[in-house]
Amino acid sequence: MAIKTVINAAGRRVPLKINGQSAVPFKGVGKHWPEGTKHSPPVPTCSDYPCDGNKVVRSLEEALRKCGLRNGMTISTHHHLRDGDLISNRIFELASAMGVKDLVWFPSASFPCNDPVINYLDDGTINRIEGSMNGPLGRYVSEGKMKGTAVLRSHGGRVQAIQDGEVKIDIAVLVAPSADSFGNARGTGGSSACGVIGYAKADSMYASKVIVVTDNLVDFPCFPMEIEGNYVDYVVVVDKIGVPEKIVSGTTQVTKSPDRLLIAELTASFLEKSGILKDGVTIQAGAGGTSLAIAVFVHEILKQKDWKAKFGFGGSTKYMINMLEEGQMNYILDAQAFDLDAVRSVEKNPNHIPYPVFNAYNYHSKGNLTSMMDIMILGATEIDLNFNGNVVTHSDGYLLHGIGGWQNCLHARNVIIPVPLFRDRIPVIVDQVTTLCGPGELIDVIITERGIAINPLRKDLIKSVKGSGLPVRTIKELKEEAERICGKPQKARFEEDIVAAIKWVDGTVIDVVRKIKTG
Amino acid sequence: MAIKTVINAAGRRVPLKINGQSAVPFKGVGKHWPEGTKHSPPVPTCSDYPCDGNKVVRSLEEALRKCGLRNGMTISTHHHLRDGDLISNRIFELASAMGVKDLVWFPSASFPCNDPVINYLDDGTINRIEGSMNGPLGRYVSEGKMKGTAVLRSHGGRVQAIQDGEVKIDIAVLVAPSADSFGNARGTGGSSACGVIGYAKADSMYASKVIVVTDNLVDFPCFPMEIEGNYVDYVVVVDKIGVPEKIVSGTTQVTKSPDRLLIAELTASFLEKSGILKDGVTIQAGAGGTSLAIAVFVHEILKQKDWKAKFGFGGSTKYMINMLEEGQMNYILDAQAFDLDAVRSVEKNPNHIPYPVFNAYNYHSKGNLTSMMDIMILGATEIDLNFNGNVVTHSDGYLLHGIGGWQNCLHARNVIIPVPLFRDRIPVIVDQVTTLCGPGELIDVIITERGIAINPLRKDLIKSVKGSGLPVRTIKELKEEAERICGKPQKARFEEDIVAAIKWVDGTVIDVVRKIKTG
Repeated sequence: MAIKTVINAAGRRVPLKINGQSAVPFKGVGKHWPEGTKHSPPVPTCSDYPCDGNKVVRSLEEALRKCGLRNGMTISTHHHLRDGDLISNRIFELASAMGVKDLVWFPSASFPCNDPVINYLDDGTINRIEGSMNGPLGRYVSEGKMKGTAVLRSHGGRVQAIQDGEVKIDIAVLVAPSADSFGNARGTGGSSACGVIGYAKADSMYASKVIVVTDNLVDFPCFPMEIEGNYVDYVVVVDKIGVPEKIVSGTTQVTKSPDRLLIAELTASFLEKSGILKDGVTIQAGAGGTSLAIAVFVHEILKQKDWKAKFGFGGSTKYMINMLEEGQMNYILDAQAFDLDAVRSVEKNPNHIPYPVFNAYNYHSKGNLTSMMDIMILGATEIDLNFNGNVVTHSDGYLLHGIGGWQNCLHARNVIIPVPLFRDRIPVIVDQVTTLCGPGELIDVIITERGIAINPLRKDLIKSVKGSGLPVRTIKELKEEAERICGKPQKARFEEDIVAAIKWVDGTVIDVVRKIKTG
Repeated sequence: MAIKTVINAAGRRVPLKINGQSAVPFKGVGKHWPEGTKHSPPVPTCSDYPCDGNKVVRSLEEALRKCGLRNGMTISTHHHLRDGDLISNRIFELASAMGVKDLVWFPSASFPCNDPVINYLDDGTINRIEGSMNGPLGRYVSEGKMKGTAVLRSHGGRVQAIQDGEVKIDIAVLVAPSADSFGNARGTGGSSACGVIGYAKADSMYASKVIVVTDNLVDFPCFPMEIEGNYVDYVVVVDKIGVPEKIVSGTTQVTKSPDRLLIAELTASFLEKSGILKDGVTIQAGAGGTSLAIAVFVHEILKQKDWKAKFGFGGSTKYMINMLEEGQMNYILDAQAFDLDAVRSVEKNPNHIPYPVFNAYNYHSKGNLTSMMDIMILGATEIDLNFNGNVVTHSDGYLLHGIGGWQNCLHARNVIIPVPLFRDRIPVIVDQVTTLCGPGELIDVIITERGIAINPLRKDLIKSVKGSGLPVRTIKELKEEAERICGKPQKARFEEDIVAAIKWVDGTVIDVVRKIKTG
């Protein structure tokens, strides 16, 4: 039976049901008012927990059994161990051995190390993934091989979905670099330190059952309690939760590409000349090579002018740590540590503060952090003539990335997207994005190596750089230049089947990804 | 119409309805399994909150109006400003002026400074208080003058009731010594510092609307976020939230009474000789003069033996701070700062950590702190021959105290109650407590100036002090000695009308207080 679809407010055809659950089509930015109340997990009682506070059980298998693992459950994990995560796959290996079917895996992100879950999608242990799909997992989904429909959410959208009960987590399996036997847990300490574990906060609060897995059991009380033991059912101690060198690369480096460096320099220059970089600025950049270069340039400007950023929001990197430690930034509020310097900084700098996405990014909250940020540096796989952005598919139509915090960050005052004009001779600026992840009205400036395009809605920004000598052009001019060099890109070809839904920050469906047409 | 009553598991006659809501009779310690799910407040959206995060409104009145204050609502406050609180009364003064009726005041405790709310009980603004009733407020209730029935809960029971939706807070008005314009708030800083404000955590999470009132607006981000701005609707800035010298006494002193000192010495001696005071001990005492003296004696023993307490749970006092700072205690986990030294310590000692009652005391949680404590020093107004305890009424039947954390603390491994054998010639040890607040099976040792009674259930403790020279006697002997000196106390005389219900930590009704028979 075909699922009923409608055209949403962004002009995209979306289904009214996903995986049997009703779905609300995107209504426009800030136009959806949620009804009802937050999700309410079962009331527990101390009568069911050990008086001495010791919740350690012998193995992950035992913990899963005690949590009543069974067909159709939703299992959540977080991605703070990044490509070094040794536990997520193990959950499904155990579930598969136990003969459990049709699970929903609800990670905060997936990494190449998670490619083996394809086995458990194949054997029916997992029905679908609701979370980011990278590389082979994305290809698997794009080719229509996943039984259920993938649902992609931003980090904030994931928290919103948990809080609102759109996704009911049956069992959260939360790895922790340090934990005590009561389940209090943090991201520092031990041999698998990842800095902070704030992605797990909502999971711990709203899941019916919570398992903490650690390789570093510490004395009670484990502080700071990023996960509060009061929400935890079982603690599992294993030899290793992660591969340290893959948890944080330790080698995140500024780009060496001349084109990317030019983009970074242009970005810093734009920030300075437009006046949006100022004393007391609040700023967030990413961890890609270009972003890191921008951070270095921004740091230089702050030093020269004797300015101080009020705070930076992490994903934190050594370049942010430098700003903090050299006095050009008051605070780092941190959702994720990207490198070893960042991990060390969380441990030692009192002004480097764990700040969960629950507080920073949740749109169904009484305000959040992103709309308070002055400067937001983001990436994109495609930007179109209306400044709409895509971060999940490539122009060939394959689902290859997660959304991360990208949609949430679009709510910042000035959203700047530094991107190369083309990648592997495929233009980044296109007529219309293959997949719509963020509406153009929220994207302010596109900065490429061949010019800067400012959203016409931002008359103030256009005015601010008039006569500055910056290479300001229209987005149409940038697109045409890319096409002159690379030729007009071929449109991706799709079948009708919907393989993935893209949620907006408020839980509505902004677009879908369809099955790739092969042959 | 008479309300139906039944005899509960503790042999007390209790009603099946209180203020029109169903009530569950006490079933025995750890015998009540809650059903259903936690309370779920409405889902908010960032669309309704200012993008710049600035939630400051001009006045408490404006905030209350914006929250939709109306008849019958439940208004919660916390008591961290203790007898210096300038805001709680103001809420009802405003409500009265606005003509609002039948409110429920749900404070975490009340103090003499709150006696003026009697005016708002009289004029119909407030229907009832669900919280502690001290002095004149208690007398008002005991004399049957309050329209609704009072409900007394422990600190943990209050959190349980909030979490479980037994009490639905419409508007939480939370005073904060420091707050930013987003509503993040803490207990330190400014001229009204009270150290920690952890009593407010559950209120902020579960109330439909939250108002933060501060006299010290600080730059975002206000850390540590004891109240998270994400839960806050409005911020009100006033000249003064409290009278500093009444917030913390700054003069909490060890008892000078020879009898009380003897009790303290006997208690310390019992702790040492029984072996329950040991290296790595976890301990909680209170802030009364006898408790402080016990803390001093315990500190001496720890020093002599070169032992270290693992942690102490506060209510923190300078005597605990001394242990921490002189190296006889690893951590203070703190729900409440009782004096200025404690307030200063929270600000400066990284091992003096805010620890909300939400995490320490809530019985409907996946474990809590109290059952992990080795030594718990508590008080009582009466103890009976079955070791049952009363903390809310005096032997004359008047309701004169709140429960505080007393019921929650009974779950510790060794509950020690040092009390004088009589007060004002009224025996403390009686045949049967006037009001049952805690079952005797949880109370282990009564220590008086004339001897120590150990609960017969604790054969291990009885054995541990055999031959120690400690004056161990039966509780019956102690009672008889008190009666020889003071005479048999007169039984309080009550009417049938129930004026207050006493909840157990799991939300069941353990006893009631009836109207005093006068004349």
